[in-house]
Amino acid sequence: MKRFLDKGWQDSMRITFDFNNMMFESLGEQGFKWEQIEELDPVLKRAAASMEAKRKAGGMAWRELPYNQGEIVQDIINTAEEIKSKFDNFVVLGIGGSALGPIAVQQALNHIYYNELPKEKRGGYPRLYVVDNVDPERMEGLFDIIDLEKTVFNVITKSGSTSETMAQFLIITSLLKDRLGENYKDHIIATTDKEKGNLIKIAKEEGLKTYYIPDGVGGRFSELCPVGLLAAAACGINIEELLAGAAYMDDIVSQRDPYKNPAYMAATLQYLAMETGKNISVIMPYADSLKYMADWYAQLCAESLGKRFDTEGNEVFVGQTPVKALGVTDQHSQIQLYTEGPFDKVVTFLGVGNYRAEMKISEGYEDIPAVSFLGGHTMNQLIHAEQLATEYALLKAGRLNNTITLPEVNAFTLGQLLYFFEVQTAFAGELLNIDAFDQPGVEEGKNATYALLGRPGYQDKKAELDARPKKKDRYII
Amino acid sequence: MKRFLDKGWQDSMRITFDFNNMMFESLGEQGFKWEQIEELDPVLKRAAASMEAKRKAGGMAWRELPYNQGEIVQDIINTAEEIKSKFDNFVVLGIGGSALGPIAVQQALNHIYYNELPKEKRGGYPRLYVVDNVDPERMEGLFDIIDLEKTVFNVITKSGSTSETMAQFLIITSLLKDRLGENYKDHIIATTDKEKGNLIKIAKEEGLKTYYIPDGVGGRFSELCPVGLLAAAACGINIEELLAGAAYMDDIVSQRDPYKNPAYMAATLQYLAMETGKNISVIMPYADSLKYMADWYAQLCAESLGKRFDTEGNEVFVGQTPVKALGVTDQHSQIQLYTEGPFDKVVTFLGVGNYRAEMKISEGYEDIPAVSFLGGHTMNQLIHAEQLATEYALLKAGRLNNTITLPEVNAFTLGQLLYFFEVQTAFAGELLNIDAFDQPGVEEGKNATYALLGRPGYQDKKAELDARPKKKDRYII
Repeated sequence: MKRFLDKGWQDSMRITFDFNNMMFESLGEQGFKWEQIEELDPVLKRAAASMEAKRKAGGMAWRELPYNQGEIVQDIINTAEEIKSKFDNFVVLGIGGSALGPIAVQQALNHIYYNELPKEKRGGYPRLYVVDNVDPERMEGLFDIIDLEKTVFNVITKSGSTSETMAQFLIITSLLKDRLGENYKDHIIATTDKEKGNLIKIAKEEGLKTYYIPDGVGGRFSELCPVGLLAAAACGINIEELLAGAAYMDDIVSQRDPYKNPAYMAATLQYLAMETGKNISVIMPYADSLKYMADWYAQLCAESLGKRFDTEGNEVFVGQTPVKALGVTDQHSQIQLYTEGPFDKVVTFLGVGNYRAEMKISEGYEDIPAVSFLGGHTMNQLIHAEQLATEYALLKAGRLNNTITLPEVNAFTLGQLLYFFEVQTAFAGELLNIDAFDQPGVEEGKNATYALLGRPGYQDKKAELDARPKKKDRYII
Repeated sequence: MKRFLDKGWQDSMRITFDFNNMMFESLGEQGFKWEQIEELDPVLKRAAASMEAKRKAGGMAWRELPYNQGEIVQDIINTAEEIKSKFDNFVVLGIGGSALGPIAVQQALNHIYYNELPKEKRGGYPRLYVVDNVDPERMEGLFDIIDLEKTVFNVITKSGSTSETMAQFLIITSLLKDRLGENYKDHIIATTDKEKGNLIKIAKEEGLKTYYIPDGVGGRFSELCPVGLLAAAACGINIEELLAGAAYMDDIVSQRDPYKNPAYMAATLQYLAMETGKNISVIMPYADSLKYMADWYAQLCAESLGKRFDTEGNEVFVGQTPVKALGVTDQHSQIQLYTEGPFDKVVTFLGVGNYRAEMKISEGYEDIPAVSFLGGHTMNQLIHAEQLATEYALLKAGRLNNTITLPEVNAFTLGQLLYFFEVQTAFAGELLNIDAFDQPGVEEGKNATYALLGRPGYQDKKAELDARPKKKDRYII
């Protein structure tokens, strides 16, 4: 039996949320009292009811992704096998939600130096590159290391009008056509909306292999649809287990009772923190494998909760600023500030129960006790001790912190974690009474870019830009 | 003549600081008025005088690094050539200041996929790995991709008691001794204090090749001493040009007049921002090459300026939280928050005049204007337009922002940038009246780690840890 179908194994892999160090009993006056949460009871009940109502009405399509993709998953798995047999490189052309999930999942579940391994040590699967910028140096650099004829490109944009992605698409299709003629089509897979937008139009006209981003699944909530699943499967990741983990977490975070629902509780505590001016949310994984989960979360948090207006149109200017840190590395960079600086943040540790490797620290230098005490321990013990020590240092300094622990990093626990954060974020949106699913604040920059590049229809915006205050020379030194 | 000695070329490569969008004239009421800076005049004069006095008294040894390393630089260059002839991999064992600088400089100045290039495309220089964590999965992963016999390890720790680095050192020396016997020595270079600590003791006893970290040069100010120079030279970077850039910037940022001194002005504006509650400092390079400069700056800023006490012992709990973003990538992740969220941050763009590559966007799809308008432009134009558009979006939303522009990313401009940020940070320390060069807040976590691993002498700390409040089960869900 596949392990992810075994209930006993599933329960042994349940991730946990420890918020002791958010509370008065541990932290003292900087912590929250139980009564503060109880006082929120009506708010929490209303938010939970709203979550359920929206889901029932089909307004949270991303929540159904663990359940309604049976055929698509099979198609993706078949495609992945075909890719494996034909290609050495799988390149994602995408940005934001089309890039951060694929990067995070790859880093978590494959070898940490995956692209540098010889093919046989990658199980025969292709290397993965995610090109989520339009830096010409990086784009040129990519062509130095990939052979176009052995590369498949997955262009991902829901709207088909993402400038960065479509610019990459133009460059790549032109290169492929020059090199391969009509066969260029075999090297491009489009992931986009089923009906709307430019990319689906192009894909249909040219007969490209296409996956769809379901209605109601926005970029930052799209990792568990083909956006993330194809890249993962193409690199040998078990996407059925990933989805099973998400489904397992759905059971847990669908509970109305916030005292049993870790996603609701996490959102509630961040909400309380924001009310007392803690407007910075640090995510600090103690594992290199989870490093880019912090990046994925940073988008989810910032775009969903950073809002000017509430749902009634009042100006609120809310939103914690997500900060990415890495344990133990950033103990030597950020912890000084976190323990001694302003009381303006909440630190969320991502801990790991069992690492997938054990590394013994060799004994030696018995005449130097400050070195030799390390010998005989494992790096596993060292990293665990450092996480605990950092938690303790924050506690002693009166700093809010909490810990999410994955028994192990695998597809099942990662699926849980993705789903956990998504529900936490949506629930936080309810508490803040904002729309967690739009991003009106990015329009200004997009439109200004269009105007600067002379896109038809943006002449007015160009005129507006030209009329902005001239820069003063004395303010440039 | 070497280009970095030519005054005309140097001046064409001068980096600039544009703070128009910090000021009232551009930003309106969220901006600062010129009089606010003028009112600070006595404070600025005092801070400038203190900077000069400290430097004269030898209290800022890091400021002399561009000038006093002639022989060392030659030795490093010779060693780099020897390394090139013998090794395929150069591995830094270090953390914090010993790692972030080497990573940032490598990313900026070498090919973006350097480690994946074949040796001849790397100019024959070795690959670079910086192992700045004690994650057992990452350590084991490293051994899958390097051949120990073709690898040289540069162990870097000033104190010789950094647990993470010494644990790595114990593992590596043991492996090397098993494999190579007495020849293991040829595979280790130590960079540490000249006299104090465990590593220099070991290095002397075992006869390891050693570089010294000068007195008075703390970890986060050490990139321009052998800590950073050896790794850079070993990968073919022109470290003389790097130091020349730092010296060039020293002239600029030694001026007393803050209206001519960009580092002083930058610090002054951040200081004013902090006074009005803008406690988040975002660094947003518009170049993948500068991505890890944001990480290096994040340590410099957080450890230097995140302080509980001022120099008179008053509790102040100051410090901006540095946030790393990447343009254009994070426009699709963070800009929603930056334009619509709380007025709690300053965004510093790092722009690039000329990228070292040009990438033309191919024309096509004339029937789809929303795509075809991109064709015929270059990615260079696109990334420049997006930077300008984002700056404009922030301006329109009344958000403080400023821009540092490098005419090009090269060793000379990077040397300038490193030195600029160091002086800005030291000057900010003067304005805040704190010690920018200590890090007392990291001791608690270090000591707790020692206690948890049973280091002799830490029994009391262990007892203290054991006596901490027990966690409540109901706060773990």
